[in-house]
Amino acid sequence: MSDPDDNYDSHYFEGVEKLLELWFRKPASSKNGDLRDIPRQKLEALLKIVNCEIISFSSNDRVDAYVLSESSMFVAERRFILKTCGTTTPLKCLKPLLCLVEQHAGFTEVEEIFYSRKNFKRPELQKSPHKSFQDEVDFLNSIFKDGVGYCLGNSDEDCWYLYTLQGTDVINNNNNNNSNNNNTDNIEIEPDQTLEVLMTDLDPQVMSLFTKNSCSTAAEATQKSGIDKILPQMVIDDYLFEPCGYSMNGLSKNGSYMTIHITPEPEFSYVSFETNVPQVSYREVIQKVLQVFRPGKFVLTLFTNKESVAMDSPGVLKRGKKYCNFGDLECREVQYCQLRNYDLSFAFYSKFPS
Amino acid sequence: MSDPDDNYDSHYFEGVEKLLELWFRKPASSKNGDLRDIPRQKLEALLKIVNCEIISFSSNDRVDAYVLSESSMFVAERRFILKTCGTTTPLKCLKPLLCLVEQHAGFTEVEEIFYSRKNFKRPELQKSPHKSFQDEVDFLNSIFKDGVGYCLGNSDEDCWYLYTLQGTDVINNNNNNNSNNNNTDNIEIEPDQTLEVLMTDLDPQVMSLFTKNSCSTAAEATQKSGIDKILPQMVIDDYLFEPCGYSMNGLSKNGSYMTIHITPEPEFSYVSFETNVPQVSYREVIQKVLQVFRPGKFVLTLFTNKESVAMDSPGVLKRGKKYCNFGDLECREVQYCQLRNYDLSFAFYSKFPS
Repeated sequence: MSDPDDNYDSHYFEGVEKLLELWFRKPASSKNGDLRDIPRQKLEALLKIVNCEIISFSSNDRVDAYVLSESSMFVAERRFILKTCGTTTPLKCLKPLLCLVEQHAGFTEVEEIFYSRKNFKRPELQKSPHKSFQDEVDFLNSIFKDGVGYCLGNSDEDCWYLYTLQGTDVINNNNNNNSNNNNTDNIEIEPDQTLEVLMTDLDPQVMSLFTKNSCSTAAEATQKSGIDKILPQMVIDDYLFEPCGYSMNGLSKNGSYMTIHITPEPEFSYVSFETNVPQVSYREVIQKVLQVFRPGKFVLTLFTNKESVAMDSPGVLKRGKKYCNFGDLECREVQYCQLRNYDLSFAFYSKFPS
Repeated sequence: MSDPDDNYDSHYFEGVEKLLELWFRKPASSKNGDLRDIPRQKLEALLKIVNCEIISFSSNDRVDAYVLSESSMFVAERRFILKTCGTTTPLKCLKPLLCLVEQHAGFTEVEEIFYSRKNFKRPELQKSPHKSFQDEVDFLNSIFKDGVGYCLGNSDEDCWYLYTLQGTDVINNNNNNNSNNNNTDNIEIEPDQTLEVLMTDLDPQVMSLFTKNSCSTAAEATQKSGIDKILPQMVIDDYLFEPCGYSMNGLSKNGSYMTIHITPEPEFSYVSFETNVPQVSYREVIQKVLQVFRPGKFVLTLFTNKESVAMDSPGVLKRGKKYCNFGDLECREVQYCQLRNYDLSFAFYSKFPS
C-alpha cells in the first residue's frame, strides 16, 4: 500500500477506511435474486470508479470475499460491504452499484445503508466527495431520503462518522402508518452484528512484522503476529504488500467474516479489525485483537440488531456504572445510539489522558 | 427581544441559546466561599462583555436568579449558569468570570463545565467565537485542558453540541493515579440533573400569546399559556418583551429552578424549557411542556449524575426496546453519552418524517 519512491518526509498513506455496507430487501414476488450474480467483470468496472482493484478472492457457499488493492469487499446474498482506504472514492460507485444490483439480482429496495469512517488524519488529501463528512452526507442525501449523519466521540479529535437511514423501528412498529413502512410484510429479520476496532499509535515492533523485510509471505506475517489465533475458525486469505502493508479476509463456514487492514508506517500507523461473528460478549475478541496489535488508542464500534445474541453487549463496555478498561487502555468516552433496527455502541480508549 | 423597526423580511432573532454551566470545587482549606458574594456591579460588567444586561432579579436562600435582556443567569453557592440567546458572546466572559470567582468566592478549581447549544438557525449572524462549534471548542480548549466536544443528533440538521471535560469517573475511581484526580478527597457529591426541551416549529396560536398585542403583562401570558401549571411549586419571575418575546425564571424552596424563553415569531419560533427539579421520570413534565407549547419538533436532553433520583431515566425515553413517542411527536433519534460524572440522554422528536 506504499510507494517506496516517495520522499520519506512527504510520504503519507491514509489507512483510515471508508466503510459502505448495504442491505437489499428481497422483493415479495421472487425468492431468487443474489448479489453474487453480478458478474466479476462488472464488479471490476465498479471498483475502477472507486480507484482500486481486486487482488485476491476467496469464497464459501455464504459469501464472496475480495482482497482489494485498498482493503476489502464482501458480497453475500443481499448484503454488500465495500471497505476502502487511501484516497479511494467508494461513494462514487453507489449509483452504478444500485443499477447493477437491480439488473443482476432484481433488488430495487435498499433496506439499510451504513456509511462510516473514523476521522481522516489528513482530510485535505481526500478526493471529492470525501473531503469532509458534510460533503459525504450531502452526496448520500442526493441518493437516499431520510438519511441521518452522526458524529460520535470527540468531534475535535478521535471521532467516528456514520450515515444511515433515520426513522422509527420498521420491524417492531408494523402498525404505524408510516409511508416508509409499506413493505414491512416482507422483512426478513436475521441476527446481525458488526464489531470494529480501529487502532492508531501502534507498537512499532508489531508493525515491523507487516513489511517485506520481516516476513517473506503474508502467511508468515499472519502467524508471527498471532492474527490466525484471533478467530481460529476463520479460513484466511491474506496479502502482504510491497514494501509494507497487510490485508486479510477470513471466512467461516457459517457465513461470518473477519477482515484486518494494516498500515504499519510508524508516522501514521493504523490497523482496523472488523468482524460480524456472533458473540454474547466481545470482550475476549477485543482483548485478543489488542494483544496482537498493542495500540496506543482505539475506537470501538458495535452494531447489534434485535435478533443478535450480542444484543445486550453495549453493557459489556461498562461494568455497573463504571468504565471498563482493557489493561492500561482506559475508556475515555462511551456513547450509545439507537438506530432504526440496530443499537450502536461507540467507545474510545487511550493509554494516557489525551 | 425584537426590534419593531426592522424590515419584516430581514428581521431575524436567534432564539437558540448558548448555555454555560460551571461547577466550582470548594477548596479543602475553607468552608466558606459562595459565588453569590460576587458584587452585582461586577456581574453587570461581566454581562456587558456578553452583550446583555440584567432586567429582573429574584432569589431565595439557595439561588439568585436573573432575567436578562437575552435569557437568564442563575448563581448558587458553587454553580454558575448563564444562558443567552441572540448574538451574545458568553464564552468571552469566561476568563473574567474565573478571575471574579477566585477573587470573591476563593474558588480556583473548575469541577465541571458544560457548554451546550442547539445548532443555530442562522450561524452566519453569530459573533466570534460563536460562528461555529469548532471555533467554540478551540476557544474553550485554550482555557481548559481535557475538554471534549460532542455533536449529538443529525449533524446535518437538528443537532445539539456539548463541550465538557473528558475523563474517567473522578468520583468512583479514587484509586486511579490520574494526575487530574488529586483533589478527589474534597469532592462533594450532590444529586444533580438537568432537563432541557428545545422546541421549534411551534403552534402560532400559542405563540401569539407572547406578544404585547395579546397580553398586557407577563403574568397574563404566564397564566393564559399554562406555564404556571408546569411546575406549580415554582415562584415565578416573568417578563414580556416589547413587541413580543417572553422569559421567565422559577425558583422553588428546595433550590430547584426552571426557566423558559420564547421567541414567538412564526418564521423562526423557538421555545426552550429547562429545569433541574428532581424527578424519577420526566415523562409527565415533558408532556405538560408539550401541551403548553405544541411544537412541531423538539430536542430533549437530560443530564443525570449518580446521586440523582432520575438516574435511570434515560430508560424513560424508550420503553422496552421500542421508541417512546409523545402523541404524534415521534422519536426519531436517541443517543446516550457517558460523561465523567453524568449520564447524558439526547432525543429528537418530530411530527413528520423529516
